[in-house]
Amino acid sequence: MVAEPNNWGRFGPDDQRGTLNLLGGDRVLAALGHAVTGRVLSLSAPIGRGAPRLRGRPAPQHYMSIDGADFAAGTRPVGAGLRMADDALIVSAHGTTTHMDALCHMWSGEELYNGHPAAQVHSYGARRCGIEQVGGVVAKGVLFDVPRLLGVGHLPAAHRVSAEELAACGEVGPGDVAVVRTGWPLVWGRSPEEYRSGQPGLSAEAGRWLAGRDVAVVAADNAAVGGLNARQLADEALEDDLHLILLHRHGIHLAEMLWLEELAAAGRTEFVFVAAPLRIVGGTGSALNPLAIL
Amino acid sequence: MVAEPNNWGRFGPDDQRGTLNLLGGDRVLAALGHAVTGRVLSLSAPIGRGAPRLRGRPAPQHYMSIDGADFAAGTRPVGAGLRMADDALIVSAHGTTTHMDALCHMWSGEELYNGHPAAQVHSYGARRCGIEQVGGVVAKGVLFDVPRLLGVGHLPAAHRVSAEELAACGEVGPGDVAVVRTGWPLVWGRSPEEYRSGQPGLSAEAGRWLAGRDVAVVAADNAAVGGLNARQLADEALEDDLHLILLHRHGIHLAEMLWLEELAAAGRTEFVFVAAPLRIVGGTGSALNPLAIL
Amino acid sequence: MVAEPNNWGRFGPDDQRGTLNLLGGDRVLAALGHAVTGRVLSLSAPIGRGAPRLRGRPAPQHYMSIDGADFAAGTRPVGAGLRMADDALIVSAHGTTTHMDALCHMWSGEELYNGHPAAQVHSYGARRCGIEQVGGVVAKGVLFDVPRLLGVGHLPAAHRVSAEELAACGEVGPGDVAVVRTGWPLVWGRSPEEYRSGQPGLSAEAGRWLAGRDVAVVAADNAAVGGLNARQLADEALEDDLHLILLHRHGIHLAEMLWLEELAAAGRTEFVFVAAPLRIVGGTGSALNPLAIL
Amino acid sequence: MVAEPNNWGRFGPDDQRGTLNLLGGDRVLAALGHAVTGRVLSLSAPIGRGAPRLRGRPAPQHYMSIDGADFAAGTRPVGAGLRMADDALIVSAHGTTTHMDALCHMWSGEELYNGHPAAQVHSYGARRCGIEQVGGVVAKGVLFDVPRLLGVGHLPAAHRVSAEELAACGEVGPGDVAVVRTGWPLVWGRSPEEYRSGQPGLSAEAGRWLAGRDVAVVAADNAAVGGLNARQLADEALEDDLHLILLHRHGIHLAEMLWLEELAAAGRTEFVFVAAPLRIVGGTGSALNPLAIL
Repeated sequence: MVAEPNNWGRFGPDDQRGTLNLLGGDRVLAALGHAVTGRVLSLSAPIGRGAPRLRGRPAPQHYMSIDGADFAAGTRPVGAGLRMADDALIVSAHGTTTHMDALCHMWSGEELYNGHPAAQVHSYGARRCGIEQVGGVVAKGVLFDVPRLLGVGHLPAAHRVSAEELAACGEVGPGDVAVVRTGWPLVWGRSPEEYRSGQPGLSAEAGRWLAGRDVAVVAADNAAVGGLNARQLADEALEDDLHLILLHRHGIHLAEMLWLEELAAAGRTEFVFVAAPLRIVGGTGSALNPLAIL
Repeated sequence: MVAEPNNWGRFGPDDQRGTLNLLGGDRVLAALGHAVTGRVLSLSAPIGRGAPRLRGRPAPQHYMSIDGADFAAGTRPVGAGLRMADDALIVSAHGTTTHMDALCHMWSGEELYNGHPAAQVHSYGARRCGIEQVGGVVAKGVLFDVPRLLGVGHLPAAHRVSAEELAACGEVGPGDVAVVRTGWPLVWGRSPEEYRSGQPGLSAEAGRWLAGRDVAVVAADNAAVGGLNARQLADEALEDDLHLILLHRHGIHLAEMLWLEELAAAGRTEFVFVAAPLRIVGGTGSALNPLAIL
Repeated sequence: MVAEPNNWGRFGPDDQRGTLNLLGGDRVLAALGHAVTGRVLSLSAPIGRGAPRLRGRPAPQHYMSIDGADFAAGTRPVGAGLRMADDALIVSAHGTTTHMDALCHMWSGEELYNGHPAAQVHSYGARRCGIEQVGGVVAKGVLFDVPRLLGVGHLPAAHRVSAEELAACGEVGPGDVAVVRTGWPLVWGRSPEEYRSGQPGLSAEAGRWLAGRDVAVVAADNAAVGGLNARQLADEALEDDLHLILLHRHGIHLAEMLWLEELAAAGRTEFVFVAAPLRIVGGTGSALNPLAIL
Repeated sequence: MVAEPNNWGRFGPDDQRGTLNLLGGDRVLAALGHAVTGRVLSLSAPIGRGAPRLRGRPAPQHYMSIDGADFAAGTRPVGAGLRMADDALIVSAHGTTTHMDALCHMWSGEELYNGHPAAQVHSYGARRCGIEQVGGVVAKGVLFDVPRLLGVGHLPAAHRVSAEELAACGEVGPGDVAVVRTGWPLVWGRSPEEYRSGQPGLSAEAGRWLAGRDVAVVAADNAAVGGLNARQLADEALEDDLHLILLHRHGIHLAEMLWLEELAAAGRTEFVFVAAPLRIVGGTGSALNPLAIL
């Protein structure tokens, strides 16, 4: 049985400078043993115009502050001939790109995970549970390829994955990363409108099943781990909300909007999962390029 | 002898969708063997007000679009009681935070690394050699702790690390990541002005020594791998410029402004180095949270 | 007959520091004579979530960096008790808000208005014809209320206003500001999709009619002065493109996406028109709050 | 005697859609009578790299999303040959550029000007007293050229302008705009460090003198109307703080960081003052291009 909040998830001193890893060294070493071929896959969608994005969310903006065209048009090189390109990125990660949620991203009542006062999350950032606390995640990843189990290209929007379906896909243990594939990003390619018409996701029961197995992270290719209705909202009651079950009550980090198609095609269900969110002080999350080492 | 451009660095089809890894699977597996204790360290400075930044570069900006203080002040929760925090980040990575340079970041003449026309780097981003091409780096990391070698807390601003000094610190081979410590970020803590008064860095000779060993990445804790003068510029002539030697001529990615103090204190010179830059389409670089698995 | 480029529009030394006004002092004084009641109206749509915006354009983003909720949640005041709110705005003006176009915004061939090389508009901004050159516009404004003329609430998307229709609405002379109402912003309120399905606008003939009268500015409530098709593009050939006729060939500034409903309701067709675009160095335009003094 | 809050400053229904002007029509008409030559001057500093900015404040960022260099380097025109330049601006107005403060910008205790609860200023913007409420200001402007009075190029940093000095410069009445010149922006040109070493400004007594005359706006060329010490803070106690006296207690809008050198050189102390802040919904202020019609 897993107490809430679980042990490995209980961070050390939350505002300690330096890096906190979610797992002890022994588990990291054991996780590395799941690398077999050494192939490295990015599980991130590109950050650019073509990528999936929820309705109403600001698209990431990427601007070049100096580029090759400027030099082609006559801008003088630096010094004896150095030329360079520079740029800026504006990104609001939730709902717009592959990202990881910080533990301060969602809650109910007056307290964040682990009892930190929610009012400490203010305009200067989250004084507790910010994304900079994550450090890095190196763990065993387990792919739950639900569409493959069900013999479909992707789950339909209304599908809520059951615990039974998860159990039929694979097994996961303490400190592992559950990587859940719904296939929903494939819908974006044929119709952004359909992508935004709802989303498949985990049922509350499946969320509890994962929490009960004490996973470190749940990483999914849909936008909210749980499902979304046509208004892009979760339908569950508070006690069944996936973010509240996993993030708020158990301190399980969530990664969302992953691109899992190459991973699914590779046919491997166990691998090394690596996530290194940007260390944005007080951030509610970070755009992310998760890696699978096969 | 290493031909320019080297072999492992020669990317596959540059605009291929999907992930490109810098190393073959065998080397990745061999690299993982350098994890001994399984401790995971972030090598990233925090992205926030206190972090080192070159003069004249825009500080990263982090804004909360909804936060706990809003709810404390009376904002209604979503639905039956869900509360959330969301934010946005504006970041221009070069010179402002721990980051990786894309191969399009610097060049001389009309061509990028591998002969791509530099004019293809325009306001819509780099059509060639953008940061999204990196995918992920999982490799053996080797720490070159030059201040430790010389018995100083940090190198002085005018110091240019020689190939001999590198050789006295450690050995590095094809596909490895050379992690070079100057200790210069320590100066920021006592005086931002001194930090900006110049920076120690590699000599051209040391850059050629590393290129000759066919490293995959050079990652340093200073701002430009090479040294900087008081005007924050490189002093070397074009043929000796560190960015041109490594990035432009050899296709060796650079990571800069790392935080290496915990790594140096850990006393390990060989480890697993992981870098997963954001997949910004056409980006000239990406803020980065590099990891060391000890 | 008006020569191209016209005289009043020919700027003084284009890169002169300081302010350039589009009109001589006598005309400004004469224009002020059109104020009768002294009522001041803003002709700007609000910059916020509810405002009209073309498809695919980035919505303006507004972030609070400190606010009253923070203090309510316990943030300490400055010094003895000062509290403050601060914020940031990210805006890409064209197609997203009431704005004025700089003369560098559009051209064909290799030259901007007045023969400046277009290559001087590069990543550091426009070295010629930037919005900072405008200074301020104080002129006689003339309302062309086309829907009122035709007895409709707003023009249909496919309507292209003829010169005859303009002439039936009012008369305009050298240095005046032609304020053209289509009523199209009213469509946004009932359906953003319909708003984006096309837009009514001036015909090329009407553009020439205005250029021939030597107006200083054409200000309209649609997104592009000319009409737009369902793909949000102008249908006209190059020689008939409204931006090219007015902005490029005659140096007539354009202001777009104005909110003209209160002005139309006020029943005055002549008034003082004031525009003071932000002095963004090298900017291609500026968000704008145009004023009418009735 | 002027009651607090004064009458003309008491806005109509604060959240009314539409435009509110600070003055009645008669006063606007009377103000227009102060235009003599019709010369129009911008009182705005440029928004760009060279402009004055307080220490620690984010510099405005201006990015081109498409420009002439791109076309010179081979980007294809739109359709049959249309070329265009587009851009984006990121601006946090206070302390970085010529701007106007909204009435929600500063307060003490729990209430904004006019008794609105300060907690209504939250991450979604100010629900009361936002800058979009201003509409436009058209009023008689009166220049208080204090350096000219004292026979100096600019006031020294420690100078606090007395009521007597103001009275010696000119007279101002209800609804007028007091334009206060300190000359401090001239210091920026010779030394940004000196500019930030403190700033001259109004004394509390002078603030009360202006409030007692019922001015509509106080517009100054320094950063905070009041003076600043070496830490860029106001030294006055709460009851003497210039922002609290003017903005909070009397609802007098403040405009700051104006560029007044051309106006001062023009030798006119009375003129038409026009300010049209962007209608940013819930904004704490707006970058501004104030105009003087001489």
